[in-house]
Amino acid sequence: MSAMRYLLTLSYLGTAYHGWQVQTNARAIQPVVQDAMAELFPERPGLTGCSRTDAGVHAERYYCHFDSDRVVDPYGVICSLNRRLPNDIAVVDCRPVANDFHARYSVTAKEYEYRIYNGRHRDPFTLGRALHYRFPLRVEAMGAAAACFVGRQDFSSFCAGRAKPGDKTRSVFAAEVYRQGDLVIFRVKADGFLYHMVRIMAGTLLRVSEGKLAPGDLPAVLAARDRRAAGPTAPPEGLYLTRVWYENE
Amino acid sequence: MSAMRYLLTLSYLGTAYHGWQVQTNARAIQPVVQDAMAELFPERPGLTGCSRTDAGVHAERYYCHFDSDRVVDPYGVICSLNRRLPNDIAVVDCRPVANDFHARYSVTAKEYEYRIYNGRHRDPFTLGRALHYRFPLRVEAMGAAAACFVGRQDFSSFCAGRAKPGDKTRSVFAAEVYRQGDLVIFRVKADGFLYHMVRIMAGTLLRVSEGKLAPGDLPAVLAARDRRAAGPTAPPEGLYLTRVWYENE
Repeated sequence: MSAMRYLLTLSYLGTAYHGWQVQTNARAIQPVVQDAMAELFPERPGLTGCSRTDAGVHAERYYCHFDSDRVVDPYGVICSLNRRLPNDIAVVDCRPVANDFHARYSVTAKEYEYRIYNGRHRDPFTLGRALHYRFPLRVEAMGAAAACFVGRQDFSSFCAGRAKPGDKTRSVFAAEVYRQGDLVIFRVKADGFLYHMVRIMAGTLLRVSEGKLAPGDLPAVLAARDRRAAGPTAPPEGLYLTRVWYENE
Repeated sequence: MSAMRYLLTLSYLGTAYHGWQVQTNARAIQPVVQDAMAELFPERPGLTGCSRTDAGVHAERYYCHFDSDRVVDPYGVICSLNRRLPNDIAVVDCRPVANDFHARYSVTAKEYEYRIYNGRHRDPFTLGRALHYRFPLRVEAMGAAAACFVGRQDFSSFCAGRAKPGDKTRSVFAAEVYRQGDLVIFRVKADGFLYHMVRIMAGTLLRVSEGKLAPGDLPAVLAARDRRAAGPTAPPEGLYLTRVWYENE
């Protein structure tokens, strides 16, 4: 009998974790979910995730696949895993997929949001869940700058030094900045993201709000293909993986 | 020199606290804020709050006053207290008020929200911040039932047994139920609330969604003036004090 492939959809608050993948001794999402699976799947299948995520980054939706010879009831898997998982990680879906489906390589687009709490004083409800930036943000200027990210471009200026050498061209399908009460949200959709790309974009948009860069400077920042041309890397707590699109969907 | 009266506006996540007021050995909001004030105000003025809140209940806005002979810079008070307070409590405003202003007796209306996460599976982001109710809620029926709360009425049926005897008449100015994505929110504004009143209202609206009560039954539930006629008391984690109105505002 051939193995079946299953796709799990997770949702997690990343505060307590060093991202998806095991790195030295740090606590990561992947091994925690794999441990929760051990009772249902004693063969301990490995989980293949849709992307690495940085320490402290959140996921409203995160996808990973695994193979198993067992025929399982997806609803039973969801409930069983949720009983075993810590409160900050939840399984929200489980479904069989084709054997050539791959949680990472079948991705056609991903969407991230960078959330900024823009109230003057500390807010207990968004602490660890948004960057606190106390000075009034110039959302229109930030949106005009974000629009320059759209298109098929080389994003070397928005890639942290630790990234592997290689093609830094990505297609950004949409990028916008909007206010929702005291929250300011930068939302960006692309076919792929470089290391720290969204956080460097967010840090650059903050520089635009501060008047240290003009929206019209963004084409030159991109053309520089130099990390030093862009703004600082915004901290992880504001970043959310919010959607993933797959082939044939 | 006569004392000045100051009004503090707080915002807090109530999960770790047994409400505003000290009760036996439980950790409460009031003493934590009073301790944070001790360095700025060595005379340790007492704080008078706008209402008692139950253990685990949250406040987007909570008001309390204190008297001091010192002339203080309100902005300095906010920043100093926020440095000393735990992360789940914040001071968002401080302003001088008239000496006959009273955080509790000058209230003309308060608004609460009861928030329900109505997704099928556990959600890490609303855990402890909303009631998780997994079956699809009938928001229209709940809204029709909530409309029956509006008016000057005897709310004995919506008052927990521990409450002091006395007049149970309150004026409810507005009551509505609406959906916002996976959240269902019951919002109610009144001149005052009885012990557990909003939580019993929320529990009763859940009974309506389940079809165990019809919206048309609500007038009879109110007329019974008997706690047993209403639904159960919904748990505290969904309840938020969201607004308070004062005289001369």
